[in-house]
Formats: sequence, structure tokens, C-alpha cells
Amino acid sequence: MDNKKIKAGIVGGAGYTGGEMLRILLNHPNVDIAFVNSTSNAGNLIADVHTDLIGDTDLKFTGDLPQDIDVLFLCVGHGDAKKFLIANPIADHIKIIDLSQDFRLSANASFSTPNSELKVKDFIYGLPELNREAIQSANNIANPGCFATCIQLALLPLASKGLINNEVHINATTGSTGAGQSLSNTSHFSWRNNNLSIYKAFEHQHLNEIGESLVQLDPDFNKTLNFIPQRGDFTRGILAAMYLESELTLAEAKSIYENYYEGHPFTHVSQKNIDLKQIVNTNKALIHLEKHGNKLFIISIIDNLLKGASGQAVQNMNLMFGLEETAGLKLKATYF
Amino acid sequence: MDNKKIKAGIVGGAGYTGGEMLRILLNHPNVDIAFVNSTSNAGNLIADVHTDLIGDTDLKFTGDLPQDIDVLFLCVGHGDAKKFLIANPIADHIKIIDLSQDFRLSANASFSTPNSELKVKDFIYGLPELNREAIQSANNIANPGCFATCIQLALLPLASKGLINNEVHINATTGSTGAGQSLSNTSHFSWRNNNLSIYKAFEHQHLNEIGESLVQLDPDFNKTLNFIPQRGDFTRGILAAMYLESELTLAEAKSIYENYYEGHPFTHVSQKNIDLKQIVNTNKALIHLEKHGNKLFIISIIDNLLKGASGQAVQNMNLMFGLEETAGLKLKATYF
Amino acid sequence: MDNKKIKAGIVGGAGYTGGEMLRILLNHPNVDIAFVNSTSNAGNLIADVHTDLIGDTDLKFTGDLPQDIDVLFLCVGHGDAKKFLIANPIADHIKIIDLSQDFRLSANASFSTPNSELKVKDFIYGLPELNREAIQSANNIANPGCFATCIQLALLPLASKGLINNEVHINATTGSTGAGQSLSNTSHFSWRNNNLSIYKAFEHQHLNEIGESLVQLDPDFNKTLNFIPQRGDFTRGILAAMYLESELTLAEAKSIYENYYEGHPFTHVSQKNIDLKQIVNTNKALIHLEKHGNKLFIISIIDNLLKGASGQAVQNMNLMFGLEETAGLKLKATYF
Amino acid sequence: MDNKKIKAGIVGGAGYTGGEMLRILLNHPNVDIAFVNSTSNAGNLIADVHTDLIGDTDLKFTGDLPQDIDVLFLCVGHGDAKKFLIANPIADHIKIIDLSQDFRLSANASFSTPNSELKVKDFIYGLPELNREAIQSANNIANPGCFATCIQLALLPLASKGLINNEVHINATTGSTGAGQSLSNTSHFSWRNNNLSIYKAFEHQHLNEIGESLVQLDPDFNKTLNFIPQRGDFTRGILAAMYLESELTLAEAKSIYENYYEGHPFTHVSQKNIDLKQIVNTNKALIHLEKHGNKLFIISIIDNLLKGASGQAVQNMNLMFGLEETAGLKLKATYF
Repeated sequence: MDNKKIKAGIVGGAGYTGGEMLRILLNHPNVDIAFVNSTSNAGNLIADVHTDLIGDTDLKFTGDLPQDIDVLFLCVGHGDAKKFLIANPIADHIKIIDLSQDFRLSANASFSTPNSELKVKDFIYGLPELNREAIQSANNIANPGCFATCIQLALLPLASKGLINNEVHINATTGSTGAGQSLSNTSHFSWRNNNLSIYKAFEHQHLNEIGESLVQLDPDFNKTLNFIPQRGDFTRGILAAMYLESELTLAEAKSIYENYYEGHPFTHVSQKNIDLKQIVNTNKALIHLEKHGNKLFIISIIDNLLKGASGQAVQNMNLMFGLEETAGLKLKATYF
Repeated sequence: MDNKKIKAGIVGGAGYTGGEMLRILLNHPNVDIAFVNSTSNAGNLIADVHTDLIGDTDLKFTGDLPQDIDVLFLCVGHGDAKKFLIANPIADHIKIIDLSQDFRLSANASFSTPNSELKVKDFIYGLPELNREAIQSANNIANPGCFATCIQLALLPLASKGLINNEVHINATTGSTGAGQSLSNTSHFSWRNNNLSIYKAFEHQHLNEIGESLVQLDPDFNKTLNFIPQRGDFTRGILAAMYLESELTLAEAKSIYENYYEGHPFTHVSQKNIDLKQIVNTNKALIHLEKHGNKLFIISIIDNLLKGASGQAVQNMNLMFGLEETAGLKLKATYF
Repeated sequence: MDNKKIKAGIVGGAGYTGGEMLRILLNHPNVDIAFVNSTSNAGNLIADVHTDLIGDTDLKFTGDLPQDIDVLFLCVGHGDAKKFLIANPIADHIKIIDLSQDFRLSANASFSTPNSELKVKDFIYGLPELNREAIQSANNIANPGCFATCIQLALLPLASKGLINNEVHINATTGSTGAGQSLSNTSHFSWRNNNLSIYKAFEHQHLNEIGESLVQLDPDFNKTLNFIPQRGDFTRGILAAMYLESELTLAEAKSIYENYYEGHPFTHVSQKNIDLKQIVNTNKALIHLEKHGNKLFIISIIDNLLKGASGQAVQNMNLMFGLEETAGLKLKATYF
Repeated sequence: MDNKKIKAGIVGGAGYTGGEMLRILLNHPNVDIAFVNSTSNAGNLIADVHTDLIGDTDLKFTGDLPQDIDVLFLCVGHGDAKKFLIANPIADHIKIIDLSQDFRLSANASFSTPNSELKVKDFIYGLPELNREAIQSANNIANPGCFATCIQLALLPLASKGLINNEVHINATTGSTGAGQSLSNTSHFSWRNNNLSIYKAFEHQHLNEIGESLVQLDPDFNKTLNFIPQRGDFTRGILAAMYLESELTLAEAKSIYENYYEGHPFTHVSQKNIDLKQIVNTNKALIHLEKHGNKLFIISIIDNLLKGASGQAVQNMNLMFGLEETAGLKLKATYF
């Protein structure tokens, strides 16, 4: 291995976000993959599980957890990241980027193993468009949720100006990969193909993350976010559409958004209407603004597995290690 | 032909709604198809255009318009129904069911050819769940729009009690057949497959029909309907999700909806959450209600080509001719 | 119940073929559904499992097996039909239509419970285009497999003339419902959507049924059937494409096929090329013939759940009870 | 521009293969895009047509054809490449890579404008797994067809040993992008979604390219290639399944294929069965071998727009300019 490269370990490498991490890191110019831990697949070839990687890697999954690494990505289920850290003390020199929801909320962002001598680990909420400076100096990152990323990117510029003065009406549709690789009735092809459905209306757990970020930018923010999540019959991507009453003109709104995202390499304001496939298989977010009467209308799109998960995790790693923010993340869009 | 059967003519029989009309009427126990008029396909076998009908009919399209019929279905484009009636005077004994939007709004519902001696034709808005009695005695029907049907069925019970006292927030996604068989960039498979997009936000023309119906039931209704239409990557069906602030309990709301739809054979309140494919290829509408805080949340689903077009047209015909409302419309769901 | 109607029982009513049976029989003019047996769902509303049936039936699944019925449909898994008949002796006055593969092959078509006094039950292979007369007088039916039906319909006319004199090359693609409602990796939406794959190449179990039918029509038949089955990324339907060397002209071949299928109401020869959706949600089979050099090329399409399963089962019931062969089976195609 | 970089021009940049060329070349470490010519879009922003490229480039399409470039990619329709070269003489220092079929066959591979003083341009068939050395020294490349690439990669190793001694039976299914962005009935979403169909059975024009390559490797090759092309209901990718009688054992066959592709970075033999999405959005080809009785069965998969078009064009460019063969082509698979 090149000593100058970042040594990365992945825990939970057999799942969807673990696979995306591998797809990115195998081509990342500044990273060596030190190990890919998977309890269920230890000893198996990675390319036997992530079968698109045939010819790209001869690595095998391991059950071990060597600590001579620089960064550890936790790609395990919600609740399992915390359990993992309790069961497996991680040395302080290792930066942790956790893709689960376990450390996202401020109440959970400080972690110490019970009765342990280990120092407390503090987690920074890893949304670069909100916390870039804090991420650059962070030791540990709580990587945001996919819906949460898509919706926050549509609202942060307003919150930064204290301009969310009315409740927000949000409808967002996610691809099936958001539910991971676990088999379930709502991920059964015969059911989901050509279907559309709604779940957790008004009650999706990502509302908490979103609310905390808006308060961070606007301590007076106290409006209701009405959120209707939909299951789409596609595999990748989230399209969120939302509106609120606003006195801003369209030109004023665009100016606020363009200024806010200036210098952020992945998030762009599109002058034209947008459609989901513009960002599939990329780390980009696109935002489109319209004004209709007194309603400011905002559409936001991301790939739930990239900007909504593993891509953003790598973006955070790049920031933490002083790399170019886009390193390894100039991904060819699928588009079709 | 059986003299006791209704003789039906179809104009615009080569399009999507014309094809659905044929699929229904060929199996309708009380109808003989007298002719299927198509300018572009005159002389061609119907089964050469609607190729699923091989073995079901030897009929050909005709360019003629014989008037020894009982009912005429106009399955032409928006604007073309009016032009057709100007160019082709239809005898008064023929009941007209028009699937275009030309006569839906009250301002357009009375039609007379310019400088003509023909009697005026009056059109009744053909939503049986709103106007069943008027339809039964109507001479001519303006068949509702697909989005309009889906959204109205979700709101009529409230309007009937004067209970839409706050603005309504609506997001609805339609299948590609809603755009008909005309080739376009947004109906190109390579673009639309796995894609999602928004069009005509806050400005869809169906808002006018919906508003008129709500005022019909509640003359004081004057709230804003915020409507975000989406293009889905499936072929059939509309799922509309909407909410408004309401003081009703869930039990009260369910009671109002169940009472309103009692006796309406196609529209049902589902106690459980619903998904689009429950109604695909049927004339049914399903409605599901939830209460979240002070928001009453309503999901409504229909097949855009059936309850949203040709199925509802046949339902109207059944009512106009005193048949069982469900005659010819007990359709096997596709479900998968 | 109407005493003149056929009383039908369904075993395994919670699965895909059981659901299709219900969708057909609820609208069948000559059938009353006496009971729907389901071990796993006894006591539950049918419409809570087959949720498209809301408003169509208030029936519940039962764990009982009343024997005052005329016909029993076995909609259970392969191997389970035989087990069921061993565990549950069925009175001789009840005709059995089994949708599993348990009794299809001649070696398995005669069934007697071990050490039982029950008379032997003989099963007729229920492909009406092959065995219509035998079906009309049969007591019990082994309903053909879906691939087997699609491929046989493409080959029977040739076999009936002793004209399959060379090996046959078959590629057929099936929809996901062919694999039923069991969750599996190859039916996971995120995997199957936009995917295509091959399984059981040259070794699919349906080859045995097909071979027996061809020998029935042509005792000298002994050519190889090379069969490549594919998993398609759609839910319903099978398209089979096959060819063999043949001295027949195209006109001769068409004549043989048209004569063979004359009088068979569901199977048609299309002069034009065909595509899968022409038959989806119908009980039809379409066949198209081409001649290229010395190769006779045949395309055949069916809906795997209808002509390939439950629709054909009802067709068999119609024949067994002297009804119109198409009773209850004039189904509206989905087409889109 | 970096003088050390290859200056590339693209003609026909508004189409699907032109877009893919841009998606690759914008991230290629050794290439500067000098211009993107499009007659229909001259003056428009590239990101307004290829809308996934928002934020990636500010380039506009041009109607000009500057000749201070090193390589010119022709991404125009079949027949139009030849017309373009007649109308627009290209200087001899510019290497041409043509993605159309105009110069693929040996009879067409030498081009001179009528009555012109220009030197003749000779085109090498640009399949690196067949012609790598010739490509490295070529001036002009005829880039292979998509079906042709997929099928050849499955057969070349056998031909190289003179082992295609019997006719070959091929069935291959292509995604919709193979038909480009032209609107057509068979690319209409409402028709194609969930559909499957066959076209040009036994007569696809790519058979000629394939035949020539097989003869190049085995001058005695004279067997029939039976090819059934299918239109799939997905956007990207080709899966080709084929078999022939062969005396090879499976181990012998694998050995031949593995030896043949040793050193070819994009083409791999998979020990396990393969499915289409393993290669979508990559330049890879995967091949899987099975032996059933006396039949050698071969599955081959590629992305029709990458290894089947623009990716292979860049691979050829890399070879022509002495770059690493994989430069700019280590693409993240979509996989889902």
C-alpha cells in the first residue's frame, strides 16, 4: 500500500451502502481499502456478493477489525452502529463515519461506552452544505439520512436567512434501494413494479434531523414540516417537492439559493425544471425554484445511495482529511 | 343486432380512451358497437390498431357517422370535441358522452353551433358520485378528467358537509397513459423509465373542474387547492395524497366518507393503507383516511383510463339508460 | 346460493394463483365460491390479503374443507398437492383441478393414497388445445405449467402432423409472478428492476410435460428441445421464441396452425408480429409465424397467471361442467 | 488547455452516444474537449440538452468544426458519417473514431471522397479484444455495433481456435437506448414498459460484422449464426445467450476463454451465473460458460452505450494514443 494514502476500513460491507462505498473507494485516488468487515460473509470474495465488482478487486470480506487504519466507515443498520462501538472499542486515532442514524441527533451525538475508560466520541452531523468547517476538523461524523439530505438542501438557504416563516408542505418519493437489501413485501418485485404507495405520513424519523439543522441556522425556527414519504417504483433516487408561503420574489429566492451554494461543488440550482434521473449514480443535488402566487415551490433531487449515503460519506472523508472535496466523486451519471 | 341492446358509436376510436371503450363495450351485456369512427384509420381492422383485440372483433374503423345509434362516445382530444360537433351535427335522439374537457366547466356546458337551428345541447358533469340523479336524466355528459376524478372523490364528502375550511395540499402522480399515445420527450421510454418529474405545479387545468364541484356541494367553499402533479414511471393509475387542517376526529371523518359513498358501487373507503395497483384495470376508486395532529390526510387511487376516463363514461351510460350501474364494469384487476 | 351454480372450493387461496382464481370466479356467471381455504390466513378477510378485492367480496378464508362442493381447485405449491390429498381425502363426486405439477406427467397421473380404500384418482393433463374431449369427461385435471403451455401451443400443430423432424431452439422470458409471492433474491425489486437473467438453461422441469404432449400427438417424436428460460423485469406474461429447420413454406405452416386452432376460442394466429402486452390479463394465447431460410420461426405469448395457470384452470372447469368454454373468461386486457 | 492533453472534437454531440462520450471525456484525465458540434443545437448549452451535466461543464454546442484537434468522434446516425466526411474534409493528422456502421465492413473500410485529392482514409474495426495491435497503430476506427460487440466477445475465443464447427443459436435482448433518442412507437413508454418483443429475427445487420470477425480469426468459419434480437423493457444493457454443439469440456472451454481474455482489462469470465445489471454503466463485458450435454452455452453482457458504443470508442482512443487502456473508463457501476 501507498503510505500516503488514507487507509480505510468498512464495517457492514455486504449491504447496499457498503457496496456503494466500495464502488467509490476502489477508484478513489487517495484511498486504500484496508479491510471490509462482514460478519455474515467473512471469507467470501467481495465480488461474489457485489457481483458488479468482478475484475475490479480480489479482496475478501474479513471478520477481523485491524486498527491500523485512518478512517472507519460504519455501514450497519440503525441501532447497530452504537452496539458495534460498545462491543468493539475503536482507537482514538481512527476517524469514524457512521452511516446509521444512531448519532445524528444532538442528544445522541456524544457517545461513551458504559463504564469505559475510553474517551467520549463526539459526532458532527455530516452535511457539508451545513457544517463544512466543523466537518473539516471533526473526529467522527454522523452521516445524514437520505430523505433528510434531500429536504435540507431544499430548505437550508431559507433557514439561513430566517425566512421559513410558515409551515412547509413536503412530498418526497424514494427508490427501493432506500429500504436496503432485506427482503420484504414492499420490496417484492411483483408488488412494487408499477406501484406507488405512502408510508409514515407526517411521522418519518428524518423530520428530527431536518428540524435540528433548521434550528441550527435559524434558532427561531418553529414551523411545522408536513412530510409525506412515498415509495416509488424505481431503484435509485429521491425527488422531494415542497412549498411554503413566502414573500420572496422568485429572483430573490434564486439569489439566496445561488449564494448559499456558491462554492459547494455538488449542489446546484437549475434554472429549468428537473427530473430524477439527472442525478442518478452521482453525488450531486439539484434544486429548482418556482413561485406560484404566494407559494415558493422547491424541487430537490439526489441519489439516495450517493449524496444520500455513501457518496456523502466519502465527501465527508475528503473534507476531514484535507483532500479535494470532489476527490473520487466525479461519477459518470447513468442518466438513462 | 339485438334490438334491445343499446347501439353505441365511438368517435376517435384509435386512441387510448377509444381503445379502452372498446375493451369494455365488446364485453358489455347490453351494448352493440354500431361503429367506430377514426379519420386516420378508416378501413383498417380495429384489431390491427388495438392489437390486444385479436380474436375479439372483426370490426373495422369507419370514416362514416351513421346516426341510427343511441349513444355516441367522443374520444377525441381536448378542443376537438367542440370542433367535431360544429362540423358534424348530431341528432337530438343521440345521447353524447364526451371524454374531452370541452364541456366540463359550467361556462362551457351549454353548446350551440354558431348560426345554427339545432337545439342547444346541455352537458351534465358526469361524476356519478356527485351528480348521479342528474346523469340519469341527462341527454349529454361531459366526462370528468382523470386527476379531477381522483381528487374530487377524496374531497366531495367533506364539501358536502361544508367542512373544507382550510386550504388543501395535494400531490398526485399519474401513469404515462394519461398523456395518450402521442409521442413526446416525456413519454420516451429511455427518459421516463425509472424517472419522476413534476409539471404544471399549482396550475393544472383540472383545478377548475374540481373547484366547481366543491362549490356545487358547498356554495361557501373558497379555499385554495394547492396541486402538484407528478409524472410517474408506470403506465396506469393515479395516486393522489392530500391533507388539510380539520377538527374532525378520524372516526367522524370515516363516518362522513362511508355515508357519502354508501350505495356507490365503485368507490370504497379502505380501513388499511392503500397502494396504486389495488385498482389498476378496474373502475374502482379507493380512499384511505388518516388523522395526524390537526391534519386530516386522504389518499385516493383510480385507474386514469377507467374510472378516470372510459370506465366512468360507461358508468354514465349505464345510468343514462337505466341499466345496472356496474353493467359491463366488473373488471378483473391486474393487481400485479 | 343458486342451486344451479357450480359450487367451487379453493385450497391455497392466499397465493398468487389462488388470488387469480378468485378474481375470475367472483365474476363467473355460473359459479358460487363455497369456501377459500388457507392455513395461514384462516379467519382473515380475503380482501385483506388480495387487497384489490375490496368491495367485491366479504368472504373470509377458512381452515375448513366442506365437501358439499362440485369442484375443488388446488392452488398450492409443487409437492403440496399430493401431500394435501394424502392428508385430506376428497369425496369422489368432487372434481379436482390441481394447479401444481404433481400429477402432470403420465407416471404421476394416477393417484391413490397409500393403504387407502379410496378409489384411485386419475388426472387428465388439462391443456384444452390438446385434450379437450378428454377434459370434458375428466374427473380430475392436472393443470399445465406456464412455460409448458406457452411452448406447447407453439409446437402442437407441427407435432399433430409429425413435422417436428429437427431439434427445436427455444428462448422464453417470464414475468416475476411466475415465481409466486415468496420473497427471494431474484424477486427483490432493487435487483430485478431493469435486470435480465437466465436460469435452469436446458434443464427446466417443464420440458418433461412438453415432451409428453408432443409424443401424444406424434409417437415418433424424439427430437431435442433446447430451452433457455429467462427472468424478465415485468410482472405478468411469457414470450417464447423458437425455431427449427422445416421444409414447410410459411403459407403451409400458417394453414396447419390455423386449422389446428380453429374452434379453440383463446388461441389465435396473428398475421403481424406480436408483443407481450397483447395478452396480459387475458386468457388468450397468440402465435406468430415467420420463415427465414430453412428455419420456421414461432413466437408464442400468454399471461402466465391466466392461460398459464388460473385462467386455464377455469377453462378446464368450464369444459368439465359443459359450460361455454369462455364463460367468465372474457377478460378486459390491460394492454398498457 | 493543457498542451499535453489530447484535444477531442465530437460531432453529433446531442444524441445518446454523444452524451455518453461527454460523460466519459469530461472526467478523462488525458483529454480536453475542444468542441462539441451539433447542427440542431448550435449555440445551446450542453447542460441544457444533457441535463445531468449541470455543474460539470459550461460548454456550448457549436456549428463549427475547428481542425486543431487530435481526435474526432463521429456520433451521428448510420449513413450520416459517410455523408459528413464527404461534406467536411478532415485533415489527415486527425484520428477519426466513427460510431456508426458506415465503415465497419471490410468492403466499406476504405473511404475516399469522390473526385477528391484527399488521401484515402482506412478504417480499422475497433474491437480491442480482436484487433488491439492494429488499433494501436490505426489512423481511423470503425467502432463496432452494440449487439455485435456482445456476441463477438462470446464467440471470439472459440473462433480463435477454429472451434465453431456447428451453427450457433443466439438470443439477445437490448435496452431501449439502443434505439437512440428518436421518438417511435416501440420506444413509447406506455407501449414498452412491461413489454417484450422481437424484431429483425435472423436478419439483424450486425450479423455481417460478427461474421467478418469470426472469419478473421478462423478463415474456415462458415457456420450459420441464428440471431433473435429482442427489445427489453429496460434502458441500458444487452444480454446475449447462445449455444452450439461442441466437443469441448467445460474446463477446456473456460481455459480457452480465460486465456483469450488474459490481459484484456474489461472482459472477464465469471465462474457464477451473471445478470445484466452487473455491467450497467461500466465498460465491462462479462461472460459465463456452461456445458449441457453436447451444448456449450455462453452468456455475454455489456452496456450497449458503453462497451457497445461510447466506452469502447474511448478505449480505442486510449489505445491509439498510447494511454493506459482503462484511462477514464473505471466507471462506477450503477448496479441497482
